[in-house]
Amino acid sequence: MTKKKLLPSKKDFPAEWYTTIIKLADLADYGPSKGSIIIKPYGYAIWENIQNAMNPIIKQKGVGNSYFPLLIPMSLLEKEASHIEGFSPELAVVTIAGNEKLEEPLVVRPTSETIMYNAYANWVQSWRDLPIMMNQWNNVVRWEKRTTPFLRTSEFLWQEGHTAHATLNEALETQKWAMDMYKNIYNNYFAIDGCIGNKSKAERFSGADETMTFEALMPSGKALQAATSHNLGQNFSKPFNISFQTKDGADEFAWQTSWGLSTRSIGGLILTHGDDDGLVLPPKLAPIQVVIVTVNMSDDEMRFANELKTILENGNITTEIDTRDDERFGFKLNKWEVKGIPIIYKIGAREVENKKVTAKARFNKEEREISIETSLNETTKWLDDIQTAMLANSSRNLAENTRTATNYDEFKSIISTHKGFVKVFWNDNSEIEEKIKKETTASSRCMIIDHHEKVGKDFLTGEPSSTEWIFAQSY
Amino acid sequence: MTKKKLLPSKKDFPAEWYTTIIKLADLADYGPSKGSIIIKPYGYAIWENIQNAMNPIIKQKGVGNSYFPLLIPMSLLEKEASHIEGFSPELAVVTIAGNEKLEEPLVVRPTSETIMYNAYANWVQSWRDLPIMMNQWNNVVRWEKRTTPFLRTSEFLWQEGHTAHATLNEALETQKWAMDMYKNIYNNYFAIDGCIGNKSKAERFSGADETMTFEALMPSGKALQAATSHNLGQNFSKPFNISFQTKDGADEFAWQTSWGLSTRSIGGLILTHGDDDGLVLPPKLAPIQVVIVTVNMSDDEMRFANELKTILENGNITTEIDTRDDERFGFKLNKWEVKGIPIIYKIGAREVENKKVTAKARFNKEEREISIETSLNETTKWLDDIQTAMLANSSRNLAENTRTATNYDEFKSIISTHKGFVKVFWNDNSEIEEKIKKETTASSRCMIIDHHEKVGKDFLTGEPSSTEWIFAQSY
Repeated sequence: MTKKKLLPSKKDFPAEWYTTIIKLADLADYGPSKGSIIIKPYGYAIWENIQNAMNPIIKQKGVGNSYFPLLIPMSLLEKEASHIEGFSPELAVVTIAGNEKLEEPLVVRPTSETIMYNAYANWVQSWRDLPIMMNQWNNVVRWEKRTTPFLRTSEFLWQEGHTAHATLNEALETQKWAMDMYKNIYNNYFAIDGCIGNKSKAERFSGADETMTFEALMPSGKALQAATSHNLGQNFSKPFNISFQTKDGADEFAWQTSWGLSTRSIGGLILTHGDDDGLVLPPKLAPIQVVIVTVNMSDDEMRFANELKTILENGNITTEIDTRDDERFGFKLNKWEVKGIPIIYKIGAREVENKKVTAKARFNKEEREISIETSLNETTKWLDDIQTAMLANSSRNLAENTRTATNYDEFKSIISTHKGFVKVFWNDNSEIEEKIKKETTASSRCMIIDHHEKVGKDFLTGEPSSTEWIFAQSY
Repeated sequence: MTKKKLLPSKKDFPAEWYTTIIKLADLADYGPSKGSIIIKPYGYAIWENIQNAMNPIIKQKGVGNSYFPLLIPMSLLEKEASHIEGFSPELAVVTIAGNEKLEEPLVVRPTSETIMYNAYANWVQSWRDLPIMMNQWNNVVRWEKRTTPFLRTSEFLWQEGHTAHATLNEALETQKWAMDMYKNIYNNYFAIDGCIGNKSKAERFSGADETMTFEALMPSGKALQAATSHNLGQNFSKPFNISFQTKDGADEFAWQTSWGLSTRSIGGLILTHGDDDGLVLPPKLAPIQVVIVTVNMSDDEMRFANELKTILENGNITTEIDTRDDERFGFKLNKWEVKGIPIIYKIGAREVENKKVTAKARFNKEEREISIETSLNETTKWLDDIQTAMLANSSRNLAENTRTATNYDEFKSIISTHKGFVKVFWNDNSEIEEKIKKETTASSRCMIIDHHEKVGKDFLTGEPSSTEWIFAQSY
């Protein structure tokens, strides 16, 4: 495999690099219908690792996994006006079932607010029935015009959490809890740093009072909206009639949140860490953490490889030995490099004799000699260090490519020369945002939440502003 | 909660008992569209336990989890004639997407043979690319006329495994491996015994050369087709052109299998073990294995409860303390009984003083005193014993209700008086099977595989037959 020829340069041909790496690393392939992908086992194993990281946190919070129907009666979807307005252009609609034309069309869920809240209304009578907190790991369909594997596909996998509370405060606390979880997962599993904040009115979820977002900055200088959590207020509970009797006997509508993270995150993972030699996976999400490759597959080499595998696996390091007999040593090394395996152990006659391996980290190409006695401790420590260093890299990219603009000229200059995040004082205005988008292709990504109380001038109007925003081009 | 009034008798009102228990135990609720259900967290947690039991076995075999698109172009589905003929009456069809009429309708997958094998064809060139072995945990839609929660729903969750091999033998080995896995899971997790065998021509999967099935006998005397694995021969590989170059350089089509187990299995679980007091869950699939209920929720009681919870959880027993302050002790006991919790620990003042609990098994209502020192060992052992005893119960029901008929009169008499499994010598004939079905509502369930070589007489024609079959009414 002459991967150097197969894989275009990440910097010079970012789009080609991205789609090629997905094929070469065997993460996914294209499906037969528009904008659909097939997630192959190596890609799906990353998704399973994401699920395994998130599920304990979700359950610890008291949110139960559940499953609601895929097909939503059109009338349910239409109950909340801005929700249907937002999703209407992207719907896939079932009109025939069991060889008969349906009286009411069924929409393939683009998201499950409406079908879930219709049920919540039946389950809630008193404040004692609240909160209701459910999550789903499922598939949704949004008929997007332009698609890219993982980043934007006509169907994707995600989790969608949906809660109903007796008070606005409890809903806000839950919205924030979800965003903290996403930050934790992105930082500590994806090794991706980013900015948390609120969306502008124009970028908000259709039906939300407020949308929080985790915006990651990709090496290309474009932002990726990586996960969102919404304060839905009573926007859904009113039309769906999720009402309850309070402790005092009054009638009130529930306060709600929804929050989601999708397979788009795998796109962010590829973009953030991949290089001209292929994928680079952070150890905590890598389906295989260590691959052992032998030079000749001799009995001695394979025996040593198996010894090491047992040691590493007993220490909970996922390990695989390459046992293919139709590929050469160099080919194998390339193959696993393209697949982004965090550490490769190489074993030849010399290594067998010395009871050592030559090990190489995918992330920074560092090589080490590791003896069998210390292999578990050293490798565990090394994987941890790689995980930490990868996040540090992402944080450095974020810091180095977040620039401040005080007026529109500076803003445009930064966007056209550097891209990246541009930090500005701005008073949210949808018309103005539309204009900026047209002129610069950049849009607001989020209003910074941990903004220190200070006042500046709106970068466009010069008027006083106390809200700082991140703008960027985005995927 | 006066559950005795709420829950109808299992024996006298089996259908009402079944649907009521699902509501009372909070397993599921009805969805808004025809035949759809909402799987609530308590029901979904059972499904997660099933997944956790099966995934390691599936991965150990080298089968990778993956995800293929939900929507299948109609032309793909039509490529294998008997496949589309079988599924055509049950299809849900998307005709509109993104506000436009689609040129080609997209079918919501009823099963994924066609979309997967279309991809397999692209991935296979040489014998070195085989086997391909992938599994999906996903949702499928089949627009059924008559539906019942879990047992037959318009949408259900399942796993579908799909393999392609270089030889028929390898495919047959895989088909058998899958059925062994299902038997293992049903016996050792569901505590459900059953009969393994091949389906008759009439009952075979649309597109299969042979279908193996695990048929469980429910207490009602009706059979439940609990999981199937199919030898697809080259029926799909030919129209989809999954061809490969053999070691000798010849061109050949791949040999294929598919196999699945669905949320229908939860229906079987309810039917098999539930009683007039509610659900009874085998410990290995119970979302909570031990619930601790205190009489007064006093500080002492709660402290003792927490001590016990820590001990049990450290021993990997999933444990929950009932902390609701708005329900009485007796109400709580009933609530957990209906939900089928394997063991309930009861704690009052006396128990606190003696550092003992009064424990009760849901399965046979046995009560024991358990001291805190031995609680982990005793409870672990007891849960194991319950699991074993529940399977023994199912095996006994199977043995006691499998009867032999040598002619059609005996057959009809057994079906009308006892129901259950009827064992007969029979030469598979679809016309005759159709006639039997009309006259008795019973159909062939499977041809017994571990049949000892002997020859009998076809129970209808009297002709010599060397194949023994199980007939029964079924869900």
